[in-house]
Amino acid sequence: MAEEAAVRAQAETVRRLKQDKADADEIAKEVAKLLEMKAQLGTDEGKHKFVLKTPKGTRDFGPKEMAIRERAFKAIISCFKRHGAEVIDTPVFELKETLTGKYGEDAKLIYDLKDQGGELLSLRYDLTVPFARYLAMNKITNIKRYHIAKVYRRDNPAMTRGRYREFYQCDFDIAGQFDPMIPDAECLKIVHEILSDLQLGDFVIKVNDRRILDGMFAVCGVPDSKFRTICSSVDKLDKVPWEEVRSEMVGEKGLSPEAADRIGEYVQLHGGLDLIEQLLQDPKLSQNKVAKEGLGDMKLLFEYLTLFGITEKISFDLSLARGLDYYTGVIFEAVLLQQENEHVEEPVSVGSVAGGGRYDGLVGMFDPKGRKVPCVGVSIGIERIFSILEQRLEASEEKIRTTETQVLVASAQKKLLEERLKLISELWDAGIKAEMLYKKNPKLLNQLQYCEETGIPLVAIVGEQELKDGVVKLRIVATREEVNVRRESLVEEIRIRTSQC
Amino acid sequence: MAEEAAVRAQAETVRRLKQDKADADEIAKEVAKLLEMKAQLGTDEGKHKFVLKTPKGTRDFGPKEMAIRERAFKAIISCFKRHGAEVIDTPVFELKETLTGKYGEDAKLIYDLKDQGGELLSLRYDLTVPFARYLAMNKITNIKRYHIAKVYRRDNPAMTRGRYREFYQCDFDIAGQFDPMIPDAECLKIVHEILSDLQLGDFVIKVNDRRILDGMFAVCGVPDSKFRTICSSVDKLDKVPWEEVRSEMVGEKGLSPEAADRIGEYVQLHGGLDLIEQLLQDPKLSQNKVAKEGLGDMKLLFEYLTLFGITEKISFDLSLARGLDYYTGVIFEAVLLQQENEHVEEPVSVGSVAGGGRYDGLVGMFDPKGRKVPCVGVSIGIERIFSILEQRLEASEEKIRTTETQVLVASAQKKLLEERLKLISELWDAGIKAEMLYKKNPKLLNQLQYCEETGIPLVAIVGEQELKDGVVKLRIVATREEVNVRRESLVEEIRIRTSQC
Repeated sequence: MAEEAAVRAQAETVRRLKQDKADADEIAKEVAKLLEMKAQLGTDEGKHKFVLKTPKGTRDFGPKEMAIRERAFKAIISCFKRHGAEVIDTPVFELKETLTGKYGEDAKLIYDLKDQGGELLSLRYDLTVPFARYLAMNKITNIKRYHIAKVYRRDNPAMTRGRYREFYQCDFDIAGQFDPMIPDAECLKIVHEILSDLQLGDFVIKVNDRRILDGMFAVCGVPDSKFRTICSSVDKLDKVPWEEVRSEMVGEKGLSPEAADRIGEYVQLHGGLDLIEQLLQDPKLSQNKVAKEGLGDMKLLFEYLTLFGITEKISFDLSLARGLDYYTGVIFEAVLLQQENEHVEEPVSVGSVAGGGRYDGLVGMFDPKGRKVPCVGVSIGIERIFSILEQRLEASEEKIRTTETQVLVASAQKKLLEERLKLISELWDAGIKAEMLYKKNPKLLNQLQYCEETGIPLVAIVGEQELKDGVVKLRIVATREEVNVRRESLVEEIRIRTSQC
Repeated sequence: MAEEAAVRAQAETVRRLKQDKADADEIAKEVAKLLEMKAQLGTDEGKHKFVLKTPKGTRDFGPKEMAIRERAFKAIISCFKRHGAEVIDTPVFELKETLTGKYGEDAKLIYDLKDQGGELLSLRYDLTVPFARYLAMNKITNIKRYHIAKVYRRDNPAMTRGRYREFYQCDFDIAGQFDPMIPDAECLKIVHEILSDLQLGDFVIKVNDRRILDGMFAVCGVPDSKFRTICSSVDKLDKVPWEEVRSEMVGEKGLSPEAADRIGEYVQLHGGLDLIEQLLQDPKLSQNKVAKEGLGDMKLLFEYLTLFGITEKISFDLSLARGLDYYTGVIFEAVLLQQENEHVEEPVSVGSVAGGGRYDGLVGMFDPKGRKVPCVGVSIGIERIFSILEQRLEASEEKIRTTETQVLVASAQKKLLEERLKLISELWDAGIKAEMLYKKNPKLLNQLQYCEETGIPLVAIVGEQELKDGVVKLRIVATREEVNVRRESLVEEIRIRTSQC
């Protein structure tokens, strides 16, 4: 009975709270309406001044930037396809809870959508978590896929260095239970192929393993509960000097100075197979189970990379930690090296252009029964690559074409609009890329100038004499050569003359 | 009587039980909310049950759907490029005020981002307003561009019919001051080319002009202030019968019944050049300046479309109104016609797959000095097209490949992982699309089966004898034929045998 009364009382409270909330919602709605009306009155007056800009940290891609972007994408996609990947796509937003608890300290950078009734949504922060959600939702245990799409981070933009709030990621991942290190090695091969293909200059791919890091933390005396946060500190080593990282560990994160110093010794190590062998003999590390596992797999990885012929660009680097929470095994990051010059002893890294690693637990976080699907993947940091390609193109003399038009349909005299329309329609229907000026009576000079400006290689000129003779005058813009071509051979002639395009 | 009492008592019990259940449900909801808050505070417990889904009105594209999507995109992009278009891209969100006042009654469907400090942002609702913002911001007065990207509307999704909250638009627009109707005619030619190319079945492109509509409203006695809202009512004619639209005009929007009836007579008219001529003689319309202008241009448009040879699919239709506020001239919409059958007299439209029109004032709304840039454009409603292509593929026997892999690198015996890795690396470096199973010692049968399943046409088999002889055994999956190929000729041999792919 008392229980019944309690239930009733609680129900009454719930009812009252709901009424209060409904009232508050009503008021909020009314206020919003008034504000909107005010805004619309404002624009009607024509006095409201628009701020003409894209949102902070974003940019438009004009035709020139798009031409560069498509070149880079083409190289990347053809590599992904060369490795037999399928392609998927997911929505730009996910349920908010899908992203919750996946990004550690970076969760504050997630963009949320306004609650307009219905589900709570957030913009995707990367393509990896949506991929894991996709696998769990569709019970897929085995796939090799790529996904190229925009992701969103409320970060401090540094746009000149290619850091934006809206940016592309190009992800390639292999999901499934396989023999160790074979897919992992392929991911590194892919990074090597793409960076070589794009000719971005010298680069190095740093490799480490979360298990080696965890083992290292353990033998240095870091308490288990501090592994992730100390890992975040180590992750900063590519940007700030060790002294600063050390004082964060000791000062902010409460690590003992001795433990920090032991870490300091390890994280300056980098090398190849020799370093792996050395650490396998390390009296402390070799006693730690996870570190030993990680080192064993690292050795196997290097064997496979040797068969791929790419170890020259690989550096086993104990300072590499990667920021994200979800990695469980191999991690890696590719950095471009500054062009060497006489004054600099060692090449300096100018920034990460690709990264990735193994995340065997992420899919299980979404599966109702916690079933795991091991995954390893790589993400190409395409924005920084765009920046470099853009700068390079600006510095060069190359004039980039932004259309593929093969021929301009032109006329030498007035009153030939109808003839131009008929001819261009024939060309389009035959699959020829053709343009014309949208003027009734354009001057021939203006038409030729348009070709010079836009790089159109051919001009098909109709004139009264040509119409009578059943020919079209074909002008080759580069050489100024002109030939009469019979109308029925025109398509074939254009195809032959532009076949190299 | 006793029975009645018993029934009443039972009813009362049922009522109470129901009330208890309702209370319990309320409490359960509150508890669920608390649990969710708790879960968000500490996902570490791992007890929180995720809802495994994509947000309402959105979907993932798996490899098969992507293969279909890429086919459709290819047809559309190659048409846009054939017409000499450049390509641009803009951010997925805009400043909220950029979208304000552009969409009339539909503004309520815009997704806003949460105010997390900084600018107020909204997801783009279409690609036209961002295009106009881009032109004004960069002071571009002359461009022909396409843009393919996702847009967002908080609409009631009807996913089986291809209506989503996140969906692609494929837009082609021509901006600039040109001689009348030449770019407008090209937009219609493009719709005709794309729908013919995709072989979606019979279609009709309805055409009208906002100036003809406005003139018609004027001569029918619609007050100026009601033009836009009456236009919205007319826009519903493709979904609901005239009687319903009429009662909305008279009942909700306060139009006089006589004016509504006059509109009713006009909006049932549709035809070609003959109808244009007839309306140019119409005693009322011909006296209206804007209507006359619109009809004159419509006549010119039909002349150009005749030269393009596409008037057969064009219908001048006075009931076409288009929902958006920003149109100022020609408007059009392409609808697919249901396959005719014996029982149906006239083909019925099954939905719009493309639409567009002229919007000469939109860019001026963004320019600080109100400078106008005339624009006309078309948007392809690709989601409905995907739905049709998907349904068609499912009905057909065609097996769609989701990768382009040319060869599987396989082994017939154990302990040949290293040899497979070496060979596949050579193939990748030569640009061959190659895969291998990620197992140390896969069975040959499993490797061959993988090829059958995924459609890989060739298998390169390494075995001890082949290694000794310096050859690779190349198996043609379809014919089961096997040939020994010298290792140095393998790349060339694979290229020749897959050149038709």
